[in-house]
Amino acid sequence: MAIEANENNEGVATAARVTKVLQWLMAFLSKLSAKVVDVMSQMKKVGKEDPRRVIHALKVALSITLVSAFYHVKPLYNDFGSSAMYAVFTVVVVSEFSVGATLGKGLNRGFATFFASALGLGSFYLVNSISTEDILEPVLLGALIYLTTAGITYFRFLPQMKARYDYGLLVFNLTFCLVSVSSYRDHEVLDIALKRVITIISGGLISVSVSIFVCPIWAGCDLHNLQSKNIEKLGNFLLAFGDEYFGTSEGGESNKSFMQGYKSVLTSKQVEESLANFARWEPRHGRFKFRHPWQQYLRIGNLSRQCAYRIDALNGFLYSAKTPLELSGKIPEPCINMSTETGRALKELAMAIHKMIPPSSADTHIAKSKIAATNLRSIMKTGLWEDTNLFEIIPGLTVASLLVDVVSCTERLAESIKELSTLAKFKNKDSTVVAEQPQEEEYPQPCSDNSGPQHVIAITINQLSANSFHNGNS
Amino acid sequence: MAIEANENNEGVATAARVTKVLQWLMAFLSKLSAKVVDVMSQMKKVGKEDPRRVIHALKVALSITLVSAFYHVKPLYNDFGSSAMYAVFTVVVVSEFSVGATLGKGLNRGFATFFASALGLGSFYLVNSISTEDILEPVLLGALIYLTTAGITYFRFLPQMKARYDYGLLVFNLTFCLVSVSSYRDHEVLDIALKRVITIISGGLISVSVSIFVCPIWAGCDLHNLQSKNIEKLGNFLLAFGDEYFGTSEGGESNKSFMQGYKSVLTSKQVEESLANFARWEPRHGRFKFRHPWQQYLRIGNLSRQCAYRIDALNGFLYSAKTPLELSGKIPEPCINMSTETGRALKELAMAIHKMIPPSSADTHIAKSKIAATNLRSIMKTGLWEDTNLFEIIPGLTVASLLVDVVSCTERLAESIKELSTLAKFKNKDSTVVAEQPQEEEYPQPCSDNSGPQHVIAITINQLSANSFHNGNS
Repeated sequence: MAIEANENNEGVATAARVTKVLQWLMAFLSKLSAKVVDVMSQMKKVGKEDPRRVIHALKVALSITLVSAFYHVKPLYNDFGSSAMYAVFTVVVVSEFSVGATLGKGLNRGFATFFASALGLGSFYLVNSISTEDILEPVLLGALIYLTTAGITYFRFLPQMKARYDYGLLVFNLTFCLVSVSSYRDHEVLDIALKRVITIISGGLISVSVSIFVCPIWAGCDLHNLQSKNIEKLGNFLLAFGDEYFGTSEGGESNKSFMQGYKSVLTSKQVEESLANFARWEPRHGRFKFRHPWQQYLRIGNLSRQCAYRIDALNGFLYSAKTPLELSGKIPEPCINMSTETGRALKELAMAIHKMIPPSSADTHIAKSKIAATNLRSIMKTGLWEDTNLFEIIPGLTVASLLVDVVSCTERLAESIKELSTLAKFKNKDSTVVAEQPQEEEYPQPCSDNSGPQHVIAITINQLSANSFHNGNS
Repeated sequence: MAIEANENNEGVATAARVTKVLQWLMAFLSKLSAKVVDVMSQMKKVGKEDPRRVIHALKVALSITLVSAFYHVKPLYNDFGSSAMYAVFTVVVVSEFSVGATLGKGLNRGFATFFASALGLGSFYLVNSISTEDILEPVLLGALIYLTTAGITYFRFLPQMKARYDYGLLVFNLTFCLVSVSSYRDHEVLDIALKRVITIISGGLISVSVSIFVCPIWAGCDLHNLQSKNIEKLGNFLLAFGDEYFGTSEGGESNKSFMQGYKSVLTSKQVEESLANFARWEPRHGRFKFRHPWQQYLRIGNLSRQCAYRIDALNGFLYSAKTPLELSGKIPEPCINMSTETGRALKELAMAIHKMIPPSSADTHIAKSKIAATNLRSIMKTGLWEDTNLFEIIPGLTVASLLVDVVSCTERLAESIKELSTLAKFKNKDSTVVAEQPQEEEYPQPCSDNSGPQHVIAITINQLSANSFHNGNS
């Protein structure tokens, strides 16, 4: 009886334990599935933001599968032995998002490997000719390696080296160490160096070919579209701002959130710089020549940001104190004109960049916005609202003053875009036809992707910093 | 005679040729030496900007020389064969500027290699158990490699993966390919995987140890100092601005160029983000605990930048239209007060961050600047300068209005620094003692380097992006 009760008790305890474990398992599974669902939805979102990411993943996988032929084809394998894995390394490390980044990394890797192998061999023979003693040789080699790697590592801090040759200097360090270190072990050092160079070149060729010939993603194109899109965002803000601030708009919150697009311009510097660095490696593509003036895009970017800082100050007023409309007297009219015309000018400039035509159509809008600024000045000079409360109209005056500042910023920006137009030889198509027909049809897109100023460019900082964060490795 | 003349002519021609070659050689050499001198002076400058760069170069060289022991000690070499080179690879690739970056890369590399080796072995045995045919095996493995690498490459686009595990995912791809590809060649696949893991761990350990124990450079410290320094720069501008704009200062151009320091704040976002990412890998150091609230520094950075955008708008007025002092009536006084007090508040905030004490001393200055803003409002309400030309005083009014905006920005910034102070448990030392003694002596520096707010922090964007551009490789 006692035993039975005991057994019963034990059974109950076991059942309770099993239930507990099951409950824990269920909770864990539901948490896990929630996590999985979350990650899946994020992955979907990332793909929707820029479908080229999916293409990139498939391209990299293709390159890697191709390079495994190095291991697969037997005669090749017999010749290269375990050196063939350098080809795999190279493909995985060099395959970047854009053609420019891939080419830059590939060329850096190829040349660095070549020169470092040569120098490593040289130092091996040098040390060998000085001494054949067992103790002195490794010491000499060690000193040589210490000095060279310290020098190269320090050299990487130079700004112009960092911008274009950072990866090459890293590979140089690596190969130099490898060749000269292995030289006092394996005395087939020449063979090692040669195989390394050949396998790396073949891996690099596979990567670069896939990058260029299978749905290429051009950094230059991205930079071009990014600038056009950024200027368009500034234009969108200004087009809506006048009506929004002086209260004649009925767009409400949705309009305001649309206007916030300019904020990404404030922090676009780093992205632009890395894109420009990549673009300089790219061959002629689409309507971009080999020596397209990429540096001018950076100047345009700086001016856009200056404009964006003023706009951010304007944006602050949108949410804080406003001048009541009935007190504003005659201020709103020229302000709205300035804002709208500058907005139009910016959108014309964006369109000119996008279509690679001279930005002459923006001139009339800039002229109009300058006339509005002059009007504003004369209204203020006549002091028509001397009887109003000065304190109440101060926000309105500040906004007006900032808008005048934005007009002059836009003028400088237009100058800089004109310079780009001259440098890159933008050509005007038959303008009479353009006026009659829908413009979209008239001009060939400079890039084949879908990220014109009418669409959302799907380059986020995250994805772009991808290019600078894609760390190669072994 | 004819022959002699001919010979003479030839001699003259040869002499001319030799002279030409010599001239060319001289020109080339002088160009080369000019280039070398230029590079040397740049290298000197880079080292002066941040002496830690020299230390970093020496540290990396030390790690590499240490790891060459792997090749040097014979018993080790006999055990590991050519796998030992992975240790060299690892050291060269993992050795980054800051401890956080090195640790992050090392851990990423170690774990990724381990998991990828395990998975690569698993897929090798799986494919082996399914088929032993000569044709099917490589096809199956190829398909597996294609799918896995495509998936991992795509996975790297997720923002949270990119921020912390990007390098790990790259290494995963690499090792997985290597292990599963070499598996149908070398049938000592388990041996390969194991050796790779061990050599990579030992290489990583060398790097990380040198990074931590030889003059460590902490990313967390850099982030902390960067924020403190940035806020101080904003303070410097505002302290000088009032006098500079309303013409009571005699500092002239040198003062103006000193004020431009704030410009680096405008574009500091990317640098801060990568420093914060690195800092999260770092163990407890100095007065920073393991889970120091690094994210809060990013919030502080965002608010500093908002402040900096307003300041940039103010800076525009410094160089353009000014309100003549005789027309400004009573505006200058409260404006100068606002500017100076906000500047003082910002400098106190910077000091509080630097010394890790609660930022209570800034409160009085913020209160004073708010009183000045109220004064300004009441001056404007009483309209004491109704007889002046309204047009002339508009720039002055705009500046006043922007300054009010800056005051509210600063208030938000102070709130956010107070939050940091609570989160990170900043402690106040005995304040009576502080008041009597020089403050510098009173508080231990949170970091041992010399980049407090009184000194120039030598972290330029270039050097920091170093960390994100240091591409590993093989």
